[in-house]
This record gives sequence, structure tokens and C-alpha cells, in this order.
Amino acid sequence: MRHRILAALIFFSLLVNAVQATEISGKTEECLDCHISATPGIVADWKKSLHAEVSMSEALKKPKLERRVSVEQAPDGLADVVIGCAECHTISPQTHQDTFEHNGYQIHIVVTPNDCATCHKTETEEYAQNLMSQAYGNLKNNPLYHSLVDSINGIQTFENMQTKLAPADEETNADSCFYCHGTKIEVKGMASRDTQMGIMEFPVLSGWPNQGVGRINPDGSKGSCSSCHPRHQFSIEVARKPSGCAECHKGPDVPAYQVYNVSKHGNIYSALGKDWDFKAVPWTVGKDFTAPTCATCHISLVTDEDGDVIAERSHKMSDRLPFRIFGLIYAHPFPKLPDTTIIKNKAGLPLPTELTGEPVAEYLIDENEQKKRLKTMQKVCRACHSQQWIQGHFKRLKHTIKYTNQMTLTATKILLTAWEKGAAKGLAQNDSIFNEAIEKKWVEQWLFFANSTRFASAMAGADYGVFANGRWYMSKNIQEMADWLEFKLNMMKENKLTDR
Amino acid sequence: MRHRILAALIFFSLLVNAVQATEISGKTEECLDCHISATPGIVADWKKSLHAEVSMSEALKKPKLERRVSVEQAPDGLADVVIGCAECHTISPQTHQDTFEHNGYQIHIVVTPNDCATCHKTETEEYAQNLMSQAYGNLKNNPLYHSLVDSINGIQTFENMQTKLAPADEETNADSCFYCHGTKIEVKGMASRDTQMGIMEFPVLSGWPNQGVGRINPDGSKGSCSSCHPRHQFSIEVARKPSGCAECHKGPDVPAYQVYNVSKHGNIYSALGKDWDFKAVPWTVGKDFTAPTCATCHISLVTDEDGDVIAERSHKMSDRLPFRIFGLIYAHPFPKLPDTTIIKNKAGLPLPTELTGEPVAEYLIDENEQKKRLKTMQKVCRACHSQQWIQGHFKRLKHTIKYTNQMTLTATKILLTAWEKGAAKGLAQNDSIFNEAIEKKWVEQWLFFANSTRFASAMAGADYGVFANGRWYMSKNIQEMADWLEFKLNMMKENKLTDR
Amino acid sequence: MRHRILAALIFFSLLVNAVQATEISGKTEECLDCHISATPGIVADWKKSLHAEVSMSEALKKPKLERRVSVEQAPDGLADVVIGCAECHTISPQTHQDTFEHNGYQIHIVVTPNDCATCHKTETEEYAQNLMSQAYGNLKNNPLYHSLVDSINGIQTFENMQTKLAPADEETNADSCFYCHGTKIEVKGMASRDTQMGIMEFPVLSGWPNQGVGRINPDGSKGSCSSCHPRHQFSIEVARKPSGCAECHKGPDVPAYQVYNVSKHGNIYSALGKDWDFKAVPWTVGKDFTAPTCATCHISLVTDEDGDVIAERSHKMSDRLPFRIFGLIYAHPFPKLPDTTIIKNKAGLPLPTELTGEPVAEYLIDENEQKKRLKTMQKVCRACHSQQWIQGHFKRLKHTIKYTNQMTLTATKILLTAWEKGAAKGLAQNDSIFNEAIEKKWVEQWLFFANSTRFASAMAGADYGVFANGRWYMSKNIQEMADWLEFKLNMMKENKLTDR
Repeated sequence: MRHRILAALIFFSLLVNAVQATEISGKTEECLDCHISATPGIVADWKKSLHAEVSMSEALKKPKLERRVSVEQAPDGLADVVIGCAECHTISPQTHQDTFEHNGYQIHIVVTPNDCATCHKTETEEYAQNLMSQAYGNLKNNPLYHSLVDSINGIQTFENMQTKLAPADEETNADSCFYCHGTKIEVKGMASRDTQMGIMEFPVLSGWPNQGVGRINPDGSKGSCSSCHPRHQFSIEVARKPSGCAECHKGPDVPAYQVYNVSKHGNIYSALGKDWDFKAVPWTVGKDFTAPTCATCHISLVTDEDGDVIAERSHKMSDRLPFRIFGLIYAHPFPKLPDTTIIKNKAGLPLPTELTGEPVAEYLIDENEQKKRLKTMQKVCRACHSQQWIQGHFKRLKHTIKYTNQMTLTATKILLTAWEKGAAKGLAQNDSIFNEAIEKKWVEQWLFFANSTRFASAMAGADYGVFANGRWYMSKNIQEMADWLEFKLNMMKENKLTDR
Repeated sequence: MRHRILAALIFFSLLVNAVQATEISGKTEECLDCHISATPGIVADWKKSLHAEVSMSEALKKPKLERRVSVEQAPDGLADVVIGCAECHTISPQTHQDTFEHNGYQIHIVVTPNDCATCHKTETEEYAQNLMSQAYGNLKNNPLYHSLVDSINGIQTFENMQTKLAPADEETNADSCFYCHGTKIEVKGMASRDTQMGIMEFPVLSGWPNQGVGRINPDGSKGSCSSCHPRHQFSIEVARKPSGCAECHKGPDVPAYQVYNVSKHGNIYSALGKDWDFKAVPWTVGKDFTAPTCATCHISLVTDEDGDVIAERSHKMSDRLPFRIFGLIYAHPFPKLPDTTIIKNKAGLPLPTELTGEPVAEYLIDENEQKKRLKTMQKVCRACHSQQWIQGHFKRLKHTIKYTNQMTLTATKILLTAWEKGAAKGLAQNDSIFNEAIEKKWVEQWLFFANSTRFASAMAGADYGVFANGRWYMSKNIQEMADWLEFKLNMMKENKLTDR
Repeated sequence: MRHRILAALIFFSLLVNAVQATEISGKTEECLDCHISATPGIVADWKKSLHAEVSMSEALKKPKLERRVSVEQAPDGLADVVIGCAECHTISPQTHQDTFEHNGYQIHIVVTPNDCATCHKTETEEYAQNLMSQAYGNLKNNPLYHSLVDSINGIQTFENMQTKLAPADEETNADSCFYCHGTKIEVKGMASRDTQMGIMEFPVLSGWPNQGVGRINPDGSKGSCSSCHPRHQFSIEVARKPSGCAECHKGPDVPAYQVYNVSKHGNIYSALGKDWDFKAVPWTVGKDFTAPTCATCHISLVTDEDGDVIAERSHKMSDRLPFRIFGLIYAHPFPKLPDTTIIKNKAGLPLPTELTGEPVAEYLIDENEQKKRLKTMQKVCRACHSQQWIQGHFKRLKHTIKYTNQMTLTATKILLTAWEKGAAKGLAQNDSIFNEAIEKKWVEQWLFFANSTRFASAMAGADYGVFANGRWYMSKNIQEMADWLEFKLNMMKENKLTDR
């Protein structure tokens, strides 16, 4: 017995030595010297990260399925040091517009997907094909969506019995829509700041702070890995838990988190998730978790206990998405390309469907691609559910997509009638289609109610799709829109009679 | 010291052997042989369950208070095997319409309360008397409620300035209301499917998947134990945590979970619940938990540290419910019987109160029964609170029931006036009372706002009862309904004048 | 090896003896004798508390930074006993109106801040300067706010085509607004109750139960420490977790918890908080936690790993609050004093701004004080974030305060026009400004939508500030108010024409 205990002790001390053998680079040591007192929270955070523990040569020793890195050999200088401050903040200084001289080093403030690609190449490349990476441009450069932003964020005034809408300013946009979509970070000069170490010079950034998924970075790259893997722990656990996605996918427009919470999956996660392993790579169904989170179905590498791959990791989340069920007027097949600003419908509007719902096929994936993606997703379901169960589930989702599109069409017809009869001003009058009360009711029909109903169906959180921003509100909204139109047209008629 | 360590090792190895002595049946072994790779997630899930660990003879060795089973002796064949796949999925094959031949066994897909009753007899019998077990019929077979379903789930169209409502289809109903209430599962023939094991035949089920509380099963039984005890871990922990109930009791119509979350009890659970024991049977106040969850007050066997019973376990949850505070137009004494389709008010409507609020006494429990139930509930409160505290709390709840009923009556009077004056079409016009905008506002008065206010009072989550779908909205809704009526009647008057 | 194990055992047994040396007082032993069976839940709860473990002399042995108590020497009789039932419930009997004779002791029911001050003097004094301590009077004694309470909680009736509003009753108020704000607890006589120990006499309390933050206690003190430190565990963990604040700060009027949940901080807390130490005093950034909760930024003593103080503990939460961003019509500098009933604007209304938004400077802190408070708050941010990050963040908040105030002003202008033109009755007509539908829409503009938008900005939970009760609703509400005014004025015009 004594011998075994001694042996164990020796083993552990060797282990400790082995870990200590992995070095912090001299550059990073210098960073830490000051930042341990300048920003103690993030230093402590980083110390808890895998980055602080493992060098690239160690990471590459692991079997492929267990790796978190996706390059085949250690990048220059990273083989035998842990990934510390300097390893990320001094990489390729010439490509970062925000590089500045800081205590003898060329530092850049904003670490970008290009920097992360040094070790996580595949993930970065996939993400660049992900709709999210284009979230800035897809909102900013689509004139229709941008007029929606203006109609929400612009200051309204009231004078002479009329409301007036000013365009939204950058500061408000950065604090609202573009918080999630991402801002454009640009260097606007240099400024001196009084620090613990005396006066220092720093680049002045516009659009900062921001960690939006489609952020335009000072090196021209798009996105922010810290949207889902927050600095400086970069924990896979945060990204795999539903609370991570909830940061942007919770509001009435994208109630993914709310729906998950009332699903059976969410119920099991809430009760038992505390005992699951959210750090294991690969992620083994049954062993590491017994119900999926968002990441399981949409992104993670999932295996069974034999090590067989159920789903490949993909940071191009659309790989498992046949439909686009939110954000647009009608649900439709997923767009072919992440840059949706190229899309135009027959009426010339930058929309993937006509105003009356017909999809603009040339920009959208075809049925074969839809089937392929559905199959990829369903392989995850198959780990627990029978084929019949899965088919029944997706049959309902397809039916619900059809149903919600029809209910949106009905609301659209009421709006089109209002425009036609002069009860509201629309496209023909060269007016925003989002700025009047009746138009805002129409927006809620699809952006809130139809979306919510589809999410509830897609993730089997049906309770959410009835009363909580779902079918109840779709049905009520149509009645209220029709009521309003009747009142308005009647008022117009009376006024005409009176005016005579 | 060495001897003690050795003794401990021997003890543990004996323990391990003891557990291994409990066998997996040969039938279940055969199931597992394929399903460990066909559906690895649920096999792993089951392995973590008590079912996979304990045989009935072991379960029956426990003192009565600690048992999870409620038959007095081990059912045939279950004495010395753990409860595996075959033990549930092959039971009484002749009674299950969905039994089919599968690799030489007579398997049924849908495990039902009747199957669970083999070991959990009392719980199944109690549940059959629980309102929930009738959730399918109570919604489907009550013409008034069913017209509510139609008004929410039916497709609406807009042509010639009129909206038109089609009846709801089965697929949409299954994806919304009946997801929680339960669908009717029927066998619609057989179909071949291509599986890992080659082509196989399976029964085709309608209404599938579903785990609603009042599901009509292929053996004629009602309900689904996996609504609260999700397969295949069947964890009591899931059922005892509020997230379990939240699956159906969260939306604006039944905001139990939301209210609990802002109550002191919910606050304590959120902060400290991680350290509580959710698996202990019986559940000992103070030792296992220090604030109640839904289950504590409504269903669980609760004892004190001396082993004295504070509350008996009952799956007939109405045992602790004097009032019915949600889902109906007015709060009222609990119905006598779980099948509420037998209820008719004086006006002939299938409602437990008149439209003006008077309860239909003959179908509802009397004051004595109410007192008895309140007492049963209050015994749980007494574990921590003084008599005065409890009486003060329930006095407020009764006051709030009265207050909310009055606010609903006011909304009803506005609607009755609208019907009377022809501003809307109601009972007298043989029209649905749920399909117009003003009627939907009226529905929200009771189904959302009065309900929420009562829940907030009942569970002391008062914050929810003011601004979050509570009193604020009741007061605002009345003003808006009155405004609408004024506008509408005025429009009708003007139109008459104009028409002359 | 054997020797080490033995040494460890001896050390542990000494430790156990040391703890046992701290005594439970004889009085408390007597309480426990009965209450262990009368109210077992709270006795078990207390046993898990620090109060049950530590005497004042032990507490005072700790270094100052680690102390939870703030007196310098042990109060009479508390030096060598743990803080049990009697220590709190028999303190200063003559000052408590609810003191009664109970088994030979002078007991009071309601333990008050004055009682807690015996050991936690500084915290109590700070809390008395905290806005929360005045929450009862600030709502009850401000005629304008009180008319808001009436308009929400009063029973409305509908007769002769008119709605009528009765003033709110005490019972409803206690079950809604004053649940959080606090009720007034008064002794209304004595009553006999049948207990396990036979018939006993107890004081009858009005306004009971209540644990509101501004509760008026039977000893004249204000507040309830158990609002945030629930009895009888008094856990600092509960107070430090966001769920604690959520009890009152969740509804649409104060969505702090909702916003935190969709912030990066909330995301990290949700995923990783399970591993943090919520009991450590002082609370060390990086070591004990890696993202802030409500308490971190607003109240807690926060240090770095060198033991340097980042933020002093203060139960006067306004110490870190330059702005008041919720509850009032416009955001404005924080009030100088916690009693806001003294405030009057130029128009004579008890408001800190004019109806058109101009702040009433004399009652509000000046720019210097605002800067000082902001700096105190920002020191917490500095533990992780750069100066530029923080400045960018607060620049946005200030912009959003300005933006939301403008959007409220626009809604106010519509309402003022409605009053002026007789479309609604306001101040000039001596009518409540909260009781009509259009006025309630106006209230939502600031109480729900502008508030939510500001919270979303302040805590970087931007997603909440767009669609979830934020900017979307502000913009829509203005359009709906303008629509309503047009309809109403038109109806008035037609009616005049018709009447001629």
C-alpha cells in the first residue's frame, strides 16, 4: 500500500513538472508584469484558460479528434510557449491598423479572427462562410433593412400634429442593432492617457467597444471570436451553454433561447446539465451530456462512445440549416452565400422573397442541398430518437413554416390594401415601409410572431409558440390590423364628406 | 491504519459485486446489443437511471417512506432484474395497439401510464384523477374551448376587406395547444424503414411525437409520465426542479415558472439550490432543501428530520389546490372531477361560471373541501412559517382572486355591451366569442392578466403581478376596450347618418 | 505516511473541538427546543448560516477586510455565543411595538435593521441613506406616484358607457407595489392561536407578511435586511447572485436582471459562475469570480489578489450611481437625498424634472458628484477593461440617456396636445394623468421602454434594448399615440358637426 501511495506521489510531481516545463514567453511575461496589477481580472481569467496551460506542440500531440487547433504544425515561435498576451496581441503587426508602440512592442488592441486563424485555421475559414460573419454588411448595406434600423433608432419628433423621423445616428446604432451585428472599428488617430505607468499613447478607435459577430476589424477581417468565446478564458464551456447564444438570440425577434428553455431538451439541461462535461473534445453523447444544447445541434463535433463521429464540427452553422426561419418577412430556403446584399427580388427589392412570399430561387439553396443539410442535422437527433420521431418532428416544422408564411401573407395583404387605398404610405409613395403604426404591426407579424412560432416548432418548445409571442399574437394582430384599416378608411371617407 | 485501508477496499469491492449481482434481463441485453449503437444517447441516459441499478426486490427492501415504487410485491419477472428496455416496452403486448414484431419480440413504441403502473401503481391511479390526465379531452371535447383553439390556430385570410377564419388543422394543433395537452396517438398502418440493421417494419403513429400530460395512448390510457420524468433517465430530480414544470407552465397564460422565479422561494432556489439533494426520498425539509420548488408544495412526499410526514406524496395535484386560478374566465373553487366536459352553466355554456362570474356550484368542490385542501397545502408552509404569516399570505390571495374576478367582470361588461349594440358579434349572433379583436382583448384580460396577477399572489412573486402581465395590463386593457367601443359605436353612428 | 495521516486526524479533531467551543446561548437553546419541531425548516436553515457558527469575538479576530461585522467590539452578551434565535428576536424589547411575552421571554416578531445594526452598524447606517430605505414613503407620500398606484390597483367598473376608478385598497397594494417597496407593519392588538404547545397569545400585525426594501417596522426603522439576505441563512451568496436582485428588478419597469442575462457578464456568469466563490470576504476579482454580478458593481467590497481595495463595500448603493435611469419620466442626475417626497418642480409637481424634461437641479447631485460616483463605479470596470473601453461604454450610455429622454419628450408632447385639445383630461382638468388609455401608453414610453433601453445600455445587454421592450417599442408607441390622437380629434370634430 505504502509503495502505491508513494508511486502516486511521484507520478503527480512529475506531472506538475511536466506542466511547468511549458513556458510563458518572455514577451508575455513582460505584459504580465504590469497587467497583473493594471487589469488583474483578465490576467486571472487567462490563467484559467487552456491558452495559459498548453503550447502548440502539446496541443498537436493529441489525437486529431481531441484537438481544438486545426493547423497541422506549430506556427513559428508558438511550439513551446503557452498562448499568452503577446502571442495574440503582437501577431502580424503590419496588418493591423490599430498597431501601436507600447513599451517597446508593436501591440494591437483588437484581436481578430485572422489572429485566431494562426492556430484555429479551419474554424476561421468556416466562420467566414457563416452568415454571421456578414452581419454588419447585411444590415448596413441593405437599403431596406437599413431603413428598418432608421425607423427604430431614429429620433422622432412631434410638431404641428405630425411626427417626423430623423435618420439614426452611429452612436445609437452601435448601442443597439450593431451591438450584436458588429460595428466597424477604425483608428481615428492617437490619444494620450494617464495610466498607472504614466502618460501613454494609444490609438483612438471608433465603434469601440464591440464584440458583435460581424464586426469589421482594423485588419479588414470580419467577426469576433469573443462573441461566443469571451476573453480571456476563451472557454468552450461558455460557447456550448445556451446562455452564450442567448446574448443575441433571446429577444422577441430571435427567441431561440426562450424556446429552448421550454423544450424538453432545455428542461433536462436545466435540471441535469450541472453534471455534464462541457469541456470534453470530442463531445460524446450520453457520456458527456444527455440532452443537446444549441451548440450540439448547430456546431459541435459530436461522437458516440465508440469514437464514431455523429456530427463534424463546423463553424459554418448553415451546414446544418436547410431553412432560414427568422429575420425575414417569410421563411425560405437558406441563402446560398453569406453576403445577402447581392439578393434582389423581381420587384427590385433586396429581399429573398417577393412581398407576397414567393422565394427568389436563384439566391437560395435548392431542394437537394436542403435535404443534405437536414440529414446532417438529423444525424444528431438519431443519437437518441427513432426515425419516425424525427420525421414526425420535421414534418410539423415544415407545416408550421407554411402556416406562418400564410399568416404573414394575410397581414401583408391588409397592408398592401392600406397602401393602395391611401390609408398609409408605402413603396408607391416612395415612403419607408416601416415607419407608420400599421406598418409596425405588420413587422411584428413576421419579425416577432411568425418567427417565434417557427422557433417553437423547430426546437419543440411548443408552449412558446402558442401564447408567448406565437400563434395567439398572429391571429390577434390580423384582427387588429383589419380593425385599424376599417377605422382609418372610414375616417378618410367622413373627412371627404365633411370637406365637400 | 493499513488494516483500515484494506478493510475499506474489501468493503468497496463487496459493494461493487453486490451491485453487479442485480442482473440485466436477457431480453434487455438483446435490445442493448443493437441500440447501444443505434441510439447511444438514450442507452447512456438509461444507464444513469435508477431503473438501470435496482431490481424490484431491492426496491421493496427499503422502508416504505423511502420507496419510489408503490406495489407491495415484485411483479412477475421483475424481482431480480433491473428495469431495462424490454421490461417496459414488452409489457402486456396485447393491450397496446402499437405492438409489433421486432427481432423476435413483441415491442410497443409508446410506454404508457398503464405500463408504469406495474411498479408505480398508486402514482398512476392518483394521476388518473388529476386534471392533467384529462387535458386532451377537456380541450378537444369542450366546444367553447375548442373554438378558442380554432380562433388561435386556424388560418386567417383577407379578401374583399374581410378576414375569414378556417378551422385549425390537426398538424398545427399538435404543434401548439396539444403539445402540452397531449395528442391522440393512433396506429395508422405499418411502414418499412431502412435502418442500420436493414429494412424493418414499424407501426405508423399519428400525433407522434408527443409527451403531453393528457396524451391518449394506443392502449387507451391517458397521459405521459415522461412529461415530467423525461426518458430514459426518469430522474426525480428533473421533476422536482422548477424547470420541469416550466415546459408547460411558463407562457403568459400560466406564468407559474416566471412568478416562482421572482419569489423569495425562487430566489433562494436559484442561489442555493445547487447544494440541495433533489434525489432523496423522502424529501426532508431543512436537510435536503431550504426553500420549496413547485414539487414541494404541489406533489412531493415531504418529511421533517425526525421522519414525520409533513405532506403525503400525491400525483393528484388537486389534493392541495382549493382554487382553480388559471385557464378559465373567472377563478373559482376547484372542479370536483378531472373530466370538465360534463360542466354546464345556467346559460348552457360549458363553463364552470356564468359569463358574469357566478360559479356553477354543483360541479365544484364545496367550502369544506376547499378548507381541507388549503390545510394540506399549509402544512408544507408550516415547516418554516408561522400561522400568522401563512394566514396573512392566503388572505391576500383570496382578496386578489376577488379583485381579479371583478376586473374581468368589468372587461366582460364592455364586451357584452359591444355585442348588444352590434359593435361585435357574440353568442346571440351565433358567432365565436374569440375571433374578433375586441374579443381577443377580453381573452387577454383573464387568460393573461388576471391569471398572472393571481399566480403572483399565490406564490408571492408580487413583482410579476404589477407590471409583468399583471395589474398594469388589467387596468390598461379596460381603458383600451372602452376606447375601442366608443370609436366603433361612433363610426357606426356616422355611417348611419351618412347612409341616409 | 502513517504519521502524516495521524497528524491530519489529530488536527481535524482539534478543529472540531475549536468549533464546538463556541456556544449556543441558553435562551436560544430554549427556542430551539420547541422550534426544531414547530418550524424545522428555518432551524435547519439557520444551522447552515454563519450566524450559527461564529461568535462576535471570533468574528472580530479576523483582519478588518475579511470581517462581515462592522462594530469594533462585541456587543454585550454576544462575545462568546453564536447568533441564534434569541440574540436577534429579544434584542431591545422596549423599542419594538411587537414585543410580547412568549414562554417567559420578551420576543419580537419582526427583526429590523436596528436589530442587525448591533453587529452590522455601518451597513445599516449606509442603507438608511440608500434610496431603497425610503421606498415606502417615496411611493405612498408622493401624491403623483400614489395616483399612479391607484390607477393600476384600483377597481375599475363599467356602467352607462363609462369606466369608473375606485382608489386602491391596502390589501391589493400590499400584494403588488408595496410588496417590493415595503408595507407598514403595525400591531393591531393580540390574538390567541392554537399551537403545538397549546393556546398562545401573539401580536396581530397589519401589512404582514412583508420583506420589502422600505418596510416600516414596529420599531420605527425602515427596510428589511432579509429583502436581500433571506432568513434564516442570511447568506451573502444569495445577495451576491443576480437572482436575489431579480426579485424586484425584473419586471418591464426595472429590467435589470433581464438585461444582465443578455450581457456578456451575464453570459459568463451563467456558464462559469458555478465555479466561483460567492462567500469569500473580501471578494477578489479573478480569484473568486471572473465576471461581475449586480453586487460586484453596485455594493460589494472588491479587492485584487494583492489585497488592494478596488471598491469599498457600501450599502448606500447610490455611491456608485451618477444617474437615476428608471422609475421616473426622464432620466436625470441622482437625487441628493433618499427621501424624494421633498422634491417639487417649477410647475409644483412632486417630480425631479419638469414634464418636458428639464431637471430640477436643486434636489439633484451636481456634475462633480456625478463624476465622483462614476469614477467609483469605473474602478470596478478597470479591473478588467482598458480606459478606452470604459470611456466608450459610458459615452454610449450618456448618449442613450439623451436619446431616450428625447423620445419620451416626443410622447409627452403628443399627450400635452391631447390634453390641450380636450382629447383627454389632464392636469388642467384636475384629472389623474395616469387613468386613460392614451396616458397609459405615455407611461409605458418612459416606465417600460425608455427605462429598458437605458438599462440595456448601462449594462451592455444591448439585445434587450432593441426589440425586447426597448427602442422598437418607443418608436412604435409614438406612432400609435399619434394615430390615436388623429382618430380621436377626428371623432370629436365629426360629433360636433353631427350635433349641429
